Amino acid sequence: MVKRFYVDQYVDQILAGNRVVLSRAITLTESKLPADQELAQQVINRLLPYSGNSIRIGITGAPGVGKSTFIEALGNYLIKQYQKKLAVLAIDPTSQRTGGSILGDKTRMPVLSTQPNAYIRPSPAGTSLGGVARYTRESIILCEAAGFEIIFVETVGVGQSETAVHSLTDFFLLLLLAGAGDELQGIKKGIMEMADALVITKADGANQEKARLAQAEYQNALHLFPVPPSGWQVPVQLSSALENTGIGEVWESIEAYVQKTKQNQHWEKKRQQQNLYWFHQTIRQTLEERFFTHPDVAKQLKAKEQAVLSGQLSAFAAAADLLNLAYK
Amino acid sequence: MVKRFYVDQYVDQILAGNRVVLSRAITLTESKLPADQELAQQVINRLLPYSGNSIRIGITGAPGVGKSTFIEALGNYLIKQYQKKLAVLAIDPTSQRTGGSILGDKTRMPVLSTQPNAYIRPSPAGTSLGGVARYTRESIILCEAAGFEIIFVETVGVGQSETAVHSLTDFFLLLLLAGAGDELQGIKKGIMEMADALVITKADGANQEKARLAQAEYQNALHLFPVPPSGWQVPVQLSSALENTGIGEVWESIEAYVQKTKQNQHWEKKRQQQNLYWFHQTIRQTLEERFFTHPDVAKQLKAKEQAVLSGQLSAFAAAADLLNLAYK
Repeated sequence: MVKRFYVDQYVDQILAGNRVVLSRAITLTESKLPADQELAQQVINRLLPYSGNSIRIGITGAPGVGKSTFIEALGNYLIKQYQKKLAVLAIDPTSQRTGGSILGDKTRMPVLSTQPNAYIRPSPAGTSLGGVARYTRESIILCEAAGFEIIFVETVGVGQSETAVHSLTDFFLLLLLAGAGDELQGIKKGIMEMADALVITKADGANQEKARLAQAEYQNALHLFPVPPSGWQVPVQLSSALENTGIGEVWESIEAYVQKTKQNQHWEKKRQQQNLYWFHQTIRQTLEERFFTHPDVAKQLKAKEQAVLSGQLSAFAAAADLLNLAYK
Repeated sequence: MVKRFYVDQYVDQILAGNRVVLSRAITLTESKLPADQELAQQVINRLLPYSGNSIRIGITGAPGVGKSTFIEALGNYLIKQYQKKLAVLAIDPTSQRTGGSILGDKTRMPVLSTQPNAYIRPSPAGTSLGGVARYTRESIILCEAAGFEIIFVETVGVGQSETAVHSLTDFFLLLLLAGAGDELQGIKKGIMEMADALVITKADGANQEKARLAQAEYQNALHLFPVPPSGWQVPVQLSSALENTGIGEVWESIEAYVQKTKQNQHWEKKRQQQNLYWFHQTIRQTLEERFFTHPDVAKQLKAKEQAVLSGQLSAFAAAADLLNLAYK
């Protein structure tokens, strides 16, 4: 069990940069106990005025693209070159990992995980995407209050989590592999549309030529689509963790994006829209959770779904039947 | 006011192909009166076993692409060549049109609107996208029970309605113009991803060369993306309503798609998934409608949104405040 403190203690210690208390506060937000939840909300609301000052960077890519290696390289670069304080949060709704995941992160990012300026926090195990997104959002607030200037939000799973990460971050990095055959394999178009930069990893040795070809192809593909509302031209960059190249250039892109969008107010507008999105999203999720855990609804849900699938009941009639159970 | 019949009368007359009664039943589904809604649901549930036997074709494209002209051409072709019975339903959530829209459709599709084998039904005015999608879905069921073998669902508005149409139809046709400059202007990537065929319209005269170039470009763009779950290779075709070319080829593509997906069971699977989608979507929409029309919630919503936008309250705290109002 986690040790609890008073609200003031959490607030003071987190603002002082105490990472043990930071970790406990994050664990508190993940707790299912109502008392913990209330305590967590109090802490978060007290720290909210001290949050928001980081650059939140989402990082995604298919398995095998070298995400951990890239994060390790970029993270160490930022700490050595700019003395930045960096937090790495992972979104992994499918994970069955438990406490062992911290060891996992030590293996994944061996140097970064020992840096005093880096804080790596795995995603809690066995929760829904909505839950993980919420914890991550609250973790971002807590980390920012603790003085972290750059926050990586990494998708470990694939699929829907990218949308969640995109709505949690300022800058969205898509890592790609210059593959044989279909360059976009496994990468849904919707993900490309969300990206603020594409980075082709492992662009070294015999791979370099292939990587350059892929770069040109992605650039062409991006040109087909309209300029995003930020006015930002999405770059396609090359990097190699092996030869340690391209990392500085990716950071320059991020800095250029921050400068441009702070100037044209897109930065602030995007964050406000994200806040509104999470406000409505939370309401939506809570309404559905309450509905689907209603005992009568839970009991009949499968039968109604079957009736819809087999064509016995229209989707609307089946929905009305269930809704009547909860609201009668 | 619409004249009402008994459930049996609606059912018998619609099954007999009486289009006056069909129209009245559709109007009934659009009514906001609870008694009408109940009657409509009874009729729909009775007719459900007689539905499902049509090919449902979604047709979308930016304004100016020649959607009406294309529908007129393809519709008349199907009626003349194959003696098909065809219904055209429009989805237009932004529309402020009232009764006058029927006249509008007569102007938009002058020949088709006079064909005894064609039934054209405009979208009801002043309703939300969710509402229109629902009416359209119910209209499809009613039209199928009335013996229509092909159903066009046309998006009149732009933006989100494409997703709704995609989830209502078997085959999704995206009409495109070979334009000067950016070929994909105004067409969001997500829409291309949903398309089962791209048709470049106005491919005639001086436009022909441009259209062929655009065709090659779209074909390249499509090759970048993985094969959809249906196993269907999305064709890029050319058509001209002026020279009456390409229309038969589009129909051949649709028939090939139907044959292929009925063989590999994707056809049935897609329809079942659509039914489940609408089941959950209806529940979601109803829960939200009830929540946001709750008097206390409605009164405080704007203030909470403001508090979130200005950073005074976290998205989650603000959501919790509102949820407590409705559930206390």
